[in-house]
Amino acid sequence: MTAPEDLAPRRDWTTDEVHALALELRTWGDWGPDDEIGAAHWTTPETVRHAATLVRRGVAFPLALPLDRTGPQTGRTARVNPQHVMLRHGGDLLADGEAGLRGMRSTDDAVYLPLQAGTQWDAFCHIFYDGQTYNGRGPETVTSAGASVNSITRMADRSAGRGVLVDLPRLVGREHLEPGEAVQDSDLERWSAQHGVEIGAGDTVLLRTGHLARRRAEGWGDYVAGPAPGLGLSGAAWLARRRVSAVAADTWGMEVLPSECPDISHPVHVVLMVNAGVRIGEIWDLDDLAADCAEDGVPEFLLVAPPLPITGAVGSPLNPLAIK
Amino acid sequence: MTAPEDLAPRRDWTTDEVHALALELRTWGDWGPDDEIGAAHWTTPETVRHAATLVRRGVAFPLALPLDRTGPQTGRTARVNPQHVMLRHGGDLLADGEAGLRGMRSTDDAVYLPLQAGTQWDAFCHIFYDGQTYNGRGPETVTSAGASVNSITRMADRSAGRGVLVDLPRLVGREHLEPGEAVQDSDLERWSAQHGVEIGAGDTVLLRTGHLARRRAEGWGDYVAGPAPGLGLSGAAWLARRRVSAVAADTWGMEVLPSECPDISHPVHVVLMVNAGVRIGEIWDLDDLAADCAEDGVPEFLLVAPPLPITGAVGSPLNPLAIK
Amino acid sequence: MTAPEDLAPRRDWTTDEVHALALELRTWGDWGPDDEIGAAHWTTPETVRHAATLVRRGVAFPLALPLDRTGPQTGRTARVNPQHVMLRHGGDLLADGEAGLRGMRSTDDAVYLPLQAGTQWDAFCHIFYDGQTYNGRGPETVTSAGASVNSITRMADRSAGRGVLVDLPRLVGREHLEPGEAVQDSDLERWSAQHGVEIGAGDTVLLRTGHLARRRAEGWGDYVAGPAPGLGLSGAAWLARRRVSAVAADTWGMEVLPSECPDISHPVHVVLMVNAGVRIGEIWDLDDLAADCAEDGVPEFLLVAPPLPITGAVGSPLNPLAIK
Amino acid sequence: MTAPEDLAPRRDWTTDEVHALALELRTWGDWGPDDEIGAAHWTTPETVRHAATLVRRGVAFPLALPLDRTGPQTGRTARVNPQHVMLRHGGDLLADGEAGLRGMRSTDDAVYLPLQAGTQWDAFCHIFYDGQTYNGRGPETVTSAGASVNSITRMADRSAGRGVLVDLPRLVGREHLEPGEAVQDSDLERWSAQHGVEIGAGDTVLLRTGHLARRRAEGWGDYVAGPAPGLGLSGAAWLARRRVSAVAADTWGMEVLPSECPDISHPVHVVLMVNAGVRIGEIWDLDDLAADCAEDGVPEFLLVAPPLPITGAVGSPLNPLAIK
Repeated sequence: MTAPEDLAPRRDWTTDEVHALALELRTWGDWGPDDEIGAAHWTTPETVRHAATLVRRGVAFPLALPLDRTGPQTGRTARVNPQHVMLRHGGDLLADGEAGLRGMRSTDDAVYLPLQAGTQWDAFCHIFYDGQTYNGRGPETVTSAGASVNSITRMADRSAGRGVLVDLPRLVGREHLEPGEAVQDSDLERWSAQHGVEIGAGDTVLLRTGHLARRRAEGWGDYVAGPAPGLGLSGAAWLARRRVSAVAADTWGMEVLPSECPDISHPVHVVLMVNAGVRIGEIWDLDDLAADCAEDGVPEFLLVAPPLPITGAVGSPLNPLAIK
Repeated sequence: MTAPEDLAPRRDWTTDEVHALALELRTWGDWGPDDEIGAAHWTTPETVRHAATLVRRGVAFPLALPLDRTGPQTGRTARVNPQHVMLRHGGDLLADGEAGLRGMRSTDDAVYLPLQAGTQWDAFCHIFYDGQTYNGRGPETVTSAGASVNSITRMADRSAGRGVLVDLPRLVGREHLEPGEAVQDSDLERWSAQHGVEIGAGDTVLLRTGHLARRRAEGWGDYVAGPAPGLGLSGAAWLARRRVSAVAADTWGMEVLPSECPDISHPVHVVLMVNAGVRIGEIWDLDDLAADCAEDGVPEFLLVAPPLPITGAVGSPLNPLAIK
Repeated sequence: MTAPEDLAPRRDWTTDEVHALALELRTWGDWGPDDEIGAAHWTTPETVRHAATLVRRGVAFPLALPLDRTGPQTGRTARVNPQHVMLRHGGDLLADGEAGLRGMRSTDDAVYLPLQAGTQWDAFCHIFYDGQTYNGRGPETVTSAGASVNSITRMADRSAGRGVLVDLPRLVGREHLEPGEAVQDSDLERWSAQHGVEIGAGDTVLLRTGHLARRRAEGWGDYVAGPAPGLGLSGAAWLARRRVSAVAADTWGMEVLPSECPDISHPVHVVLMVNAGVRIGEIWDLDDLAADCAEDGVPEFLLVAPPLPITGAVGSPLNPLAIK
Repeated sequence: MTAPEDLAPRRDWTTDEVHALALELRTWGDWGPDDEIGAAHWTTPETVRHAATLVRRGVAFPLALPLDRTGPQTGRTARVNPQHVMLRHGGDLLADGEAGLRGMRSTDDAVYLPLQAGTQWDAFCHIFYDGQTYNGRGPETVTSAGASVNSITRMADRSAGRGVLVDLPRLVGREHLEPGEAVQDSDLERWSAQHGVEIGAGDTVLLRTGHLARRRAEGWGDYVAGPAPGLGLSGAAWLARRRVSAVAADTWGMEVLPSECPDISHPVHVVLMVNAGVRIGEIWDLDDLAADCAEDGVPEFLLVAPPLPITGAVGSPLNPLAIK
C-alpha cells in the first residue's frame, strides 16, 4: 500500500490573472440588476428535493463552534468573543429566600456578539473590491443603518440544500493541512473521483483542513487573522464553474493565507464572493461530521444553514445542521 | 354551507388540578437523572427520516421575525429590541477617498441581543417552578456563568424533524384569535381529523393564532407581555400525551394569557416544559408558511430549527426553516 | 407685589440670518488650525482659581440623571436606555451554598450605553453643518474608528470652572417653561441684573427650564426628541459674546424646539457648537441644585464636569458636580 | 548625598491577624445600620472647603486611562476592554452624496463597557467577605437588578475633597516598584514627614507605584490580574486610622499582590472596604499629576471624582480630576 498523494503545490497568481479570473467567473446581472443572492440561485426546488433524499440514517450534526469567551477571538480587535450575560438567574431565586422557591420564576439572558466572531456566513456586502460588492453595489449601500442590499438575510430561503464534505486531511493521509497549503482544482478533482461524488449546481461545499481541530487542541494562538490552509484560486474557479452555491471551511478565512497573489490579501473572496456570487462560510466545526463521513463513507447530506435574521447584517452567526 | 365551528370555550383550572396534570405528564428520570433534553428524545432517526420525505416541492420558509429595532419589544424591560451596530461600513471607504475605492475592503458588525427578544426557543432552564427546572434541577444550576444543565444548546442535534402547522384562524374561519382564547384538546382533535394528520412522537407543532400578524399590522402595542390567544391546558396535555418534542407559536408566550389558572401565570410552561420536557418556541412568524399550507393543503413538512450555540444560554434566537 | 415679568417672546429667524450670526460668532482658527476645544480656551488658570473660591459652604451636588432602564429614552431609536447587566452577583454566592459564604468573593457588572442616552456632553464632532464640524473638519474625521479630532475627550483638562445656574421658572414665577418657549438675550440680561452676577469668560451656564422635572413627574413621554423649552438664538449669541465655555440644560436638546428657524432643526447647535466652539450639555438634572441656589441666593459655584475618556467619543455621559 | 531609603520589607500576616485587624478597624454601625458610605462621612463641608483652597494655580489633571480597545484587559474574562461603537458617523454623510454635505447632520455612538475595565471605583458591594459587604449586608442585596444597597452611586455627593499623591518611586529613588512590593505604615510615615503633609480625615490618598507606566510602556501583559506592587496591610491600617475616605492606585488591585496573607487573596480590600468602609480606586493614571507634583513640590490638591450614576452599579468608570 502506498501513501496517499499529497496536495498539488501552491501556485502564484499575478493581480492581472486574478482580475481576469474574477471577470470570467463574474455573474453580475445574470439574474438581473437587482439580484442579491447570486449563486444561491443554483439552489432550486429540484436540488432541495434531491438533498432531502440524502437523509438516509436520520442523524443530525450541528456544525457551530460554541459561542462563548473561550472562542478563538483575541480581544485585540472589535471582534471580541461573544459576551453572554445573564439578565436574571437561579441565584436571584435564592436571594429571594423561601419566596424564590415557590411558584413560577424565569431566567433571561443576552449577548453582545460580533456577528463574525464564531461560525458564520459572510454576506456579499462584507467584501468590497475596488469599491463594489456583488452585482456592482457601491459603498453607499452599507451604512450605519446596515446593508440596504446584499445583506446575508436575503439568503434565508436558499439555505437548505446538498452539502458535500471534502475532508482534506483524510485525502492526503495527514492530521491536518499546514498554514499556507492551498487546495487546488486537481485536489478537488481527485477527491471527487475517489469518492464518486460529482460536485455540482446548488451544492454547499464544506472544506475541512483540520486547522480548527489543531488550534482548538493547541490553543487558538493566531487561528484568527493568521496564516491558514485553505482554498486556492484554482480550486475556487473549479467550484464556481460547477455552480456551487456556497463554500465553507474550518478556518477563519476559508481561503489559503497568505494568499497566492501578493497584492490581494483575500483573492478567493474577490473571485468567489464579489464576482461569482458564491457565499462563504468560516470557522465551521466539521470534525464530528467528518468522523462520521469517514465511518459510513458517505460525504453528502442535507445541509440546512439559515442566517440569523438580523436586518442589514453583513455577516451572520449560525448553527448549520448537516442531516444524514 | 355552514360557518366553521368555533374554538371550545376557555376552562378554569385550580392550582391543584394543574399540579396533578403536571405530575401525570412529568417525564423526569424517564431518560435517566442526567437527561437534559426530555421530549426531544421522541425525535429519533426514524422520525427524522420520515420528516425528510415530507420535502416534496423543495421550497423553504424561514420562520423568524427580523431582528431589529422595529421589533415587538418595548424598551421598558431588559429585553430591548436587538441593537445592531456597524463596526465598519461603506462610509468608511468613502472617508478614505480614492484609496478607499481601490483594492479589497471589508465591513463588519455586531449586535447586543437579548436572547428572547425575537423568534426564540425557551431552554428548559428558562422556567423554574417551586425552585426546579426540568428533571429536578435547582437554582444553583443557572448562575452568572450561564446554565450548567438544561441549556438550549443541548438540543442542537435534535432540532430537525417533522413540523406540523395548526392554523387556528383558518380552522375557525376568522382572521385571528382574540387575546384570552385558549386552544383546547378538542380543537386540536378537530383540526387533526379535518386535515387527516396524526400529530405524534417527535413532532414540533406550530400553532398559528394570527396574533402576530394582527399586532404587526396594527402596531405592536402590548404584543409582548400582554394578553394573547394561545394553547390551553387541555391542549397542552393532548400534545404531551402524543409525545410531541416541541410546540411553538406566533405569540410571545405560546400559551393563552391570561392563563386558565388564577394562581399560576404560565401553567402551560409549567406542565409542558418544566414537567413533560417539551420545548417551547415563541414569536415565530408563521404567516407565509400558513398561506402556503392553505394553498397546497399540506400542513406538514421538514422543520429544521437549531438553537444558536451560545454556551449556557437560557433561550436562543433562531431562524427556523420549514421545508416542503 | 407684582407678578414677575415673563420671558421675551419667541423670534423668527431666516436661514440667512442664522448663517450671518454663525459667521459673526465663528471662532475657527482663533486658536490655530489644529484647535479642538474652542471656547474651552476661555477656561484659564485664572478662571479656575476664581471658581475654586466659590466653594463657600463645602457641599456638592451631582447633576446627573440615574443611568438605568427608567430613563427618558423610548427604545425606538438606537439610543436605548442604558442596559446595566450583572456579570457576577450575590446570588452566585448563594448558589455556591456554604462555600459561597466563606472567604472573599466579588461581584462585577457591565453596561451597554448609548453615550447620549442620559446626562451628557455633546462633542464638537457630534454636529456637522454643511459637512463640517468645529474648526472646519470634514466627515472623514469621524469614522467607525471614532472621531480623530474634535472628540469630547479633548476637553478633559478644561472641565472645571465656574458654573452659573440660570433658573428660568423662578425668574418668571412659574413651575416650568413650556415647550417652544425660547430664552432670549433680554431674559439673560434681566436674570443677570436681578442676581448681580456677570456671566463671563470661561463660565459654564446651566439653564434650568423645569422641563425635566415636569416630564419626570408626568412620565417621560416625548421628553426625548419632542418639543421643549430652551435657549433661543438671541440668547445663544448673548452667551457666546460673553465668551462662555459651555452651556447645559435640563432638556434633551438644550435649545428651544421647535427651533426659531424653519429650515434648521437645531440652529443654536449650529451657532454655538459648530461655529463659536461652545460645548453643549443636555439632560442635566438641575433641580436639587436649583432648590439650594434659591435658598442661599447664590447661583454660582465650582463646576467640575469631565467627560468619560472614551477614545474618539462623539458624546459622553458624565456626573457633573457643582460644589458650593 | 546618600541614596534614598528603600521601602520597608513585606510582612507575613496570618488569617487570624487579618481578621483581628479587620474587626479593630470595622466601622459598621458607626453611622447607623442603614449607612452605605462609611468613611466617606469623613468628607465634610469643612474638608471640602479646605480642599478648595488647594486650587492655587488653576490647572487640572484628568486621571483616567483612555477607555478603548488598547486597554489592559486581556479578553479572557468578562472584563473585555471597552467596545466603543459608532451608531452614525461622518461616512454616513458621504454615503448620502451631496445631500449629506448640506444642512445639519449628527453623529452618535455607544459603548459596551465592563464597569471595572479601566479607571474605576469599587463599590462597597463589590467585595463580600464571609457573605457580607460593608455594614453587614448579605448576598441578597446584590442581584440581577443590581445592588439595592452599597452601590457606588451613593458616593456621588461625597466625591470631592482633598487628594494627596504619594509617589512611591520618587520616595525610593527608582522608576517603579516591583510586583510584590508592599507599601507599609512606616513608608507612609516617612513620606508624610518628608513632604510635611499630614494625611487625615476625608482625604483620598493616591498611591503611585509606577506599575501602570511600566506596563503601558512594555505591553500590558499580566497588568490585570497579575502580581503588582501596592498597599500592604500595615499601610492600610495606618490610612484607616487617619480616617481617609478613599485610597486609589495605579494598579489593577490597589493592594500588593500576591497578598501578605496566604489564605486571603485581597486582605486589604477586606480590611479597608468591607470593614473600615474606605472606598478603593484602581487603574488610575497618576503619571502626569506625579510629574507636576514633583516639579512644584505640592502633592495635595482638590480631587473631584464622582462615579457615573449607573443605578445599582458595583463599580464605576470615571475620569477623576485633580485640580491644583
